[in-house]
Amino acid sequence: MADKIQIFDTTLRDGEQVPGCQLATEEKITIARELEALGVDVIEAGFPISSPGDFLSVIGISRAVKEPVVCGLTRAKQEDIDVAAEALRYAKRGRIHTGIGSSDVHIKHKFKSGREQVLEQGVWAVQYAKSKGYEVEFYAEDAGRADLPFLAQMIEAVIKAGADVVNIPDTTGYCLPHLYGKRIQYLFDHVSNIDKAIVSVHCHNDLGMATANTIEGLVHGARQAEVTINGIGERAGNTSLEEVAMILKTHQDLGLHTNIKSEKLYGISKLVSSMMRMPVQPNKAIVGANAFAHSSGIHQDGFLKHAENYEIINPADVGVNSSSIVLTARSGRAALKHRLEVLGYKIEGQELDIVYENFLLVADEKKQVNDQDLEVLATNIPVLAR
Amino acid sequence: MADKIQIFDTTLRDGEQVPGCQLATEEKITIARELEALGVDVIEAGFPISSPGDFLSVIGISRAVKEPVVCGLTRAKQEDIDVAAEALRYAKRGRIHTGIGSSDVHIKHKFKSGREQVLEQGVWAVQYAKSKGYEVEFYAEDAGRADLPFLAQMIEAVIKAGADVVNIPDTTGYCLPHLYGKRIQYLFDHVSNIDKAIVSVHCHNDLGMATANTIEGLVHGARQAEVTINGIGERAGNTSLEEVAMILKTHQDLGLHTNIKSEKLYGISKLVSSMMRMPVQPNKAIVGANAFAHSSGIHQDGFLKHAENYEIINPADVGVNSSSIVLTARSGRAALKHRLEVLGYKIEGQELDIVYENFLLVADEKKQVNDQDLEVLATNIPVLAR
Repeated sequence: MADKIQIFDTTLRDGEQVPGCQLATEEKITIARELEALGVDVIEAGFPISSPGDFLSVIGISRAVKEPVVCGLTRAKQEDIDVAAEALRYAKRGRIHTGIGSSDVHIKHKFKSGREQVLEQGVWAVQYAKSKGYEVEFYAEDAGRADLPFLAQMIEAVIKAGADVVNIPDTTGYCLPHLYGKRIQYLFDHVSNIDKAIVSVHCHNDLGMATANTIEGLVHGARQAEVTINGIGERAGNTSLEEVAMILKTHQDLGLHTNIKSEKLYGISKLVSSMMRMPVQPNKAIVGANAFAHSSGIHQDGFLKHAENYEIINPADVGVNSSSIVLTARSGRAALKHRLEVLGYKIEGQELDIVYENFLLVADEKKQVNDQDLEVLATNIPVLAR
Repeated sequence: MADKIQIFDTTLRDGEQVPGCQLATEEKITIARELEALGVDVIEAGFPISSPGDFLSVIGISRAVKEPVVCGLTRAKQEDIDVAAEALRYAKRGRIHTGIGSSDVHIKHKFKSGREQVLEQGVWAVQYAKSKGYEVEFYAEDAGRADLPFLAQMIEAVIKAGADVVNIPDTTGYCLPHLYGKRIQYLFDHVSNIDKAIVSVHCHNDLGMATANTIEGLVHGARQAEVTINGIGERAGNTSLEEVAMILKTHQDLGLHTNIKSEKLYGISKLVSSMMRMPVQPNKAIVGANAFAHSSGIHQDGFLKHAENYEIINPADVGVNSSSIVLTARSGRAALKHRLEVLGYKIEGQELDIVYENFLLVADEKKQVNDQDLEVLATNIPVLAR
């Protein structure tokens, strides 16, 4: 189906390589099982040659999950591919993710090589990985800054060599959405065998553009998105799984869908955050503590009249119990009245005016007004009013 | 100048209304002074009628800063505008920010009104605010979901009524970049007097699109961006000032610039985060603790060869001292060798192989390998090797 987007989760590889995020094999297996329950299509389980722990984790995850493809990362080197093939031997469906730099800055300064040599090495790596009997995904590292005609030439060659999936990463997080979309479009227009492979998008968040770039890539024909829970990952992180899933669900006009069971998003966000000791900021989209909290008077009033005024996602759809209203100096009469009613006080008219005036004095001093404060305010009206 | 983007900071209004973020007047003045030093063009200092604390803060900020315009928020109501005008009386340049809902969902469910009435009230509010002698900015609330011909009609009418700036907010964070860009383009194509006002973009981050939408708006002709430090704000927050500033600085091909002194970004991010008790996640773009940290072997190796391989922003440009290398099980030989050299150990060849093998064992167990661990590894080679 043209409109199904494969979700390739790399929380356990690109996410786990972050300072402080390293997990033991057992912890990785726990997360992998939750990713399976969430409905991801591919789990990138590690970079097997990078350390003994990673090797064992890829084996453990391969044994633990049934539905998702299990993927192992390699460089375009024989020993990397040999070790990955070994680590994936228990996977129901295994995938080797190999690749090489595609931008001139990477080719020249990192590989100390030339375009022809890296292209040749990439083609060789795909053929060698393919000979191991697994699915093969090829990454053209730093594709976001690569020369487009050369990138197209490289992608055409690796598809011809047998790559099932071609990954066009914006490794440094440099691209803006319209530019990244144009790159993906260029490949569809200039790579003659592009229909023989799935195009994958892998974006980094250095300029805050990872999710936007991913969506632009999908709109222009990519059918796999590489993401992490909470957008964790190297430096400013990767594209957030939860953002991509909820954008496609909210904007059905795009005609794209995923298998993600969105009501599990909040739970797995919490699990990953606590296991990896990686806090999620309160103002994080979809899974932040405040994502569904309304505090200003204008917003609280509008929200209480009709939730859709300020909420485009039903919190229950991502596994959050209910939108919360927090009373502060910015809260209006409507929010105060509503909260008092929840607490069992029906206060109206002049009495409400008095409670509201006193509420504002407390709120200016205390920042947040809790239910106990409200009880004091509500039960002191007679004294204040008379 | 067509290419100068006005930075309208609403950290102290849309940011400060977040649960737990409320500040005392003195704290707000401290932040306002730092915003002035940072080079913002407009400071939205509060919503004067909402509470006595807000009223006093707008007065205090108006007295404290010289260069930026000081702005106060109002609804399209006489008492709001009267109070804002009073609060702004000490401002060198004051601005009243008034407005009303523009989407049918807001008009019907929040204002219980009709299109004609809200349009009339909006025009009245602009005229009334203008009569107070201040600059006037009009916001068309929920413009991201408004009927476009009606939105154009409203914007034309408020510009005719004297609005100096027209703000097109995506209040619910619903829009995707290409859709938001098209809305701004539509207004330039259909509002005959659009050149008489500055178009402003104000985006929310519910789907993670705030910065991308803002950039699309600027690309399509908007010349003011409404932002907050660290992207704080209602629910999932507002557009991040630091992301917009660094995108425009990094992508000079867009032909847009701001007055932001980018080397002050990291410092003000820390100040706002600590004063508002609002943590910044490590993987936050530009100002997160990990934004310039490299941990994977591939990345560390590439980074050490040539920083530009993995870094599109020089950390010093945003006030961060230096990129950090954190050693973990994903670190390669190159990073280990580099760190050992920094510590004074020049280890190569077979000795490096031995240290590296032992390093991986420690790293798998300890997650992060610190300098003390490295000293132990480096000084134990003879014992291990012979």
